[in-house]
Amino acid sequence: MQRNPCIANIKAGYLFPEIAKRRREFAAAHPQAKIISLGIGNTTEPVMPHINAGLAEGARQLGTAEGYSGYGDEQGLTALREKIASVLYNGLAEPDEVFISDGAKCDIGRLQLLFGSGVKAAVQDPSYPVYVDGSVLIGSAGGWTGNGYDGIIYLPCIAANDFFPDLSIIPSDCIIYFCSPNNPTGAVANKDQLAALVKTALQKKSIIVFDAAYSEFIRAPALPKSIYEIEGAKECAIEVNSFSKTAGFTGVRLGWSIVPKALKYASGESVNTDWNRICTTIFNGASNIAQAGGLAALDSEGQKEIRFLTDYYLENAALIRKTLIAQGITCTGGDNSPYIWACFPGRDSWEVFSEILEKCHVVTTPGAGFGPAGNGYIRFSAFGHRADVEEACARLV
Amino acid sequence: MQRNPCIANIKAGYLFPEIAKRRREFAAAHPQAKIISLGIGNTTEPVMPHINAGLAEGARQLGTAEGYSGYGDEQGLTALREKIASVLYNGLAEPDEVFISDGAKCDIGRLQLLFGSGVKAAVQDPSYPVYVDGSVLIGSAGGWTGNGYDGIIYLPCIAANDFFPDLSIIPSDCIIYFCSPNNPTGAVANKDQLAALVKTALQKKSIIVFDAAYSEFIRAPALPKSIYEIEGAKECAIEVNSFSKTAGFTGVRLGWSIVPKALKYASGESVNTDWNRICTTIFNGASNIAQAGGLAALDSEGQKEIRFLTDYYLENAALIRKTLIAQGITCTGGDNSPYIWACFPGRDSWEVFSEILEKCHVVTTPGAGFGPAGNGYIRFSAFGHRADVEEACARLV
Repeated sequence: MQRNPCIANIKAGYLFPEIAKRRREFAAAHPQAKIISLGIGNTTEPVMPHINAGLAEGARQLGTAEGYSGYGDEQGLTALREKIASVLYNGLAEPDEVFISDGAKCDIGRLQLLFGSGVKAAVQDPSYPVYVDGSVLIGSAGGWTGNGYDGIIYLPCIAANDFFPDLSIIPSDCIIYFCSPNNPTGAVANKDQLAALVKTALQKKSIIVFDAAYSEFIRAPALPKSIYEIEGAKECAIEVNSFSKTAGFTGVRLGWSIVPKALKYASGESVNTDWNRICTTIFNGASNIAQAGGLAALDSEGQKEIRFLTDYYLENAALIRKTLIAQGITCTGGDNSPYIWACFPGRDSWEVFSEILEKCHVVTTPGAGFGPAGNGYIRFSAFGHRADVEEACARLV
Repeated sequence: MQRNPCIANIKAGYLFPEIAKRRREFAAAHPQAKIISLGIGNTTEPVMPHINAGLAEGARQLGTAEGYSGYGDEQGLTALREKIASVLYNGLAEPDEVFISDGAKCDIGRLQLLFGSGVKAAVQDPSYPVYVDGSVLIGSAGGWTGNGYDGIIYLPCIAANDFFPDLSIIPSDCIIYFCSPNNPTGAVANKDQLAALVKTALQKKSIIVFDAAYSEFIRAPALPKSIYEIEGAKECAIEVNSFSKTAGFTGVRLGWSIVPKALKYASGESVNTDWNRICTTIFNGASNIAQAGGLAALDSEGQKEIRFLTDYYLENAALIRKTLIAQGITCTGGDNSPYIWACFPGRDSWEVFSEILEKCHVVTTPGAGFGPAGNGYIRFSAFGHRADVEEACARLV
């Protein structure tokens, strides 16, 4: 059988397994080194008591005749859809616009099947690799040019534009992946910027996939946490989000997407209906145990725990940011975001990655892994134990 | 934006949500009716104590500093991959050929991205709807003809061929979806039949996707539980399987796929490497709690519990089978399988479905939902509480 040309088209390994491999190789060569990771955005702190009790109770109930549940609705528990709509969206989304999932990365994979190979993707450059890699897998991108893929519209987000892209280069009829607070730059789009984005999408008859996975790290009251805070967004935007970074569910696997009923194709047909078809056909729902934990996370007690946990990581971020700035390194992010984007002008970012690993035994993420405009930058993740972050900061001096 | 033509091409709703909808409508019109479901293959019995303790402990540990885990490898815990290879495959698969997932349905969705739109799909007819629907979603099928999709190779499995298809009609370079014990017919292919299937796949340079989700229901020692019991299968077959029906994990979400390293494209490149790329790019691993339960399920105590639970459902199957046969209805399955495939010659299966729902208040699954050759049949699922199955049987008389 012939190999799928879409896979043959994709470059090398997915970014984070590649970093894990380099870390393993370094560890094997330096068995004494105490390596600290500020690389992948992987939560390190235990699930807090109330939310953990929700998970444990969800597991326990499966052992009882009264509490057992088999297949649930693929779209998730009605109670959880309702709670997300009310607690997190406060009327900006209805329960049947909420689709529970096993995480935002997986949703972005399934979204490829929703859009198909016939639409172009526009991405912030740099961006979370799954938008581009997913588009390549479905076949909506062309060949690798040595500096990105043909057919992907890269929207450079660099210091010169304050990490918000020039929207005028977005063509018609495309999918615009937009992440705020941004992974990796840590930049957070303000209300005016998102209003311009929505206006562009409506004008260009394009759909925004708004990745809000880091919205709970926003502390500045004026910054929007959801694209639906912008008028007109329900006609042009899908939102994906997750419990991973807020409740520490990176390994538990629980997220959601919002597909508004007002979002229509040119033909007038409903995107929500198609997304429902995708989710019921090739997905079977998030784990019922994870969903029990999600319900607890949305209680007032769970919301307090999420605030506590995101505060903790934001304090880490402030430490890293302060350390880097004291070294004269220009940084963005790290205030309303768990990522700090550090500029190393004129340097190759994999080279800086290797230098930091070798000299400080600290794993970071090379900016080039997030797209062509990421070269010359390093992403520092604030997910880590406080003591490790402090030690990493001491080594970085 | 234009609607994805692949979705526009797909027919109506996915089968089981459609049945759920008809059930809800009937219940609304007949609020007094005590409806019993022998429809969807949804487990009803609690997770047994040892396996449940594994889940509960997995949840509890996430609340502790020592036991917390965030992202794991997308391919799953090494310990679980090793245990599946040793306990369930006994050397027929190696750990790095095992990919842990959130279930077989989801894996079949991701497999579409592995194969792409350029290869044809051959399916047993009738078959589990996800093979065909998934192929339509990726764009490897043509239009709906009124009796199936253009470009899908339907392999009729009917009484006349003892529910094993004529393999000679399989073309070259295609994906052959093959499920044994079969959903919905309950037929189990013997060693000679599977050897003929493997021989055909090798000759036709095609890849078998062997769905073994019901293998733990096999009691006849001579019947193969895995395609890898057949010589040559590692060069031509992927296997998908799941803890859903065995450990009662339908809601917990845990399955696996086997992609042998010996499986190569015409170019000599490794299918295992591409599958690893798909899984690391658009998937983020099964829930760590579910995986903790999976480890418990593979202990000797967990294996005993699985035997107990599958025995329970097989006893249900025997009851249903006996009842139908006593009514003069011809059936297959229900001995080494939890499904009983009942023939209603010359009848429209949705009509029989409605008749059974209206007269007996029993939900079944109409055979036509599984493919053109399924018309005239009804699938009875043995997943249910014993008392409900007994009452359903009494009403069917």
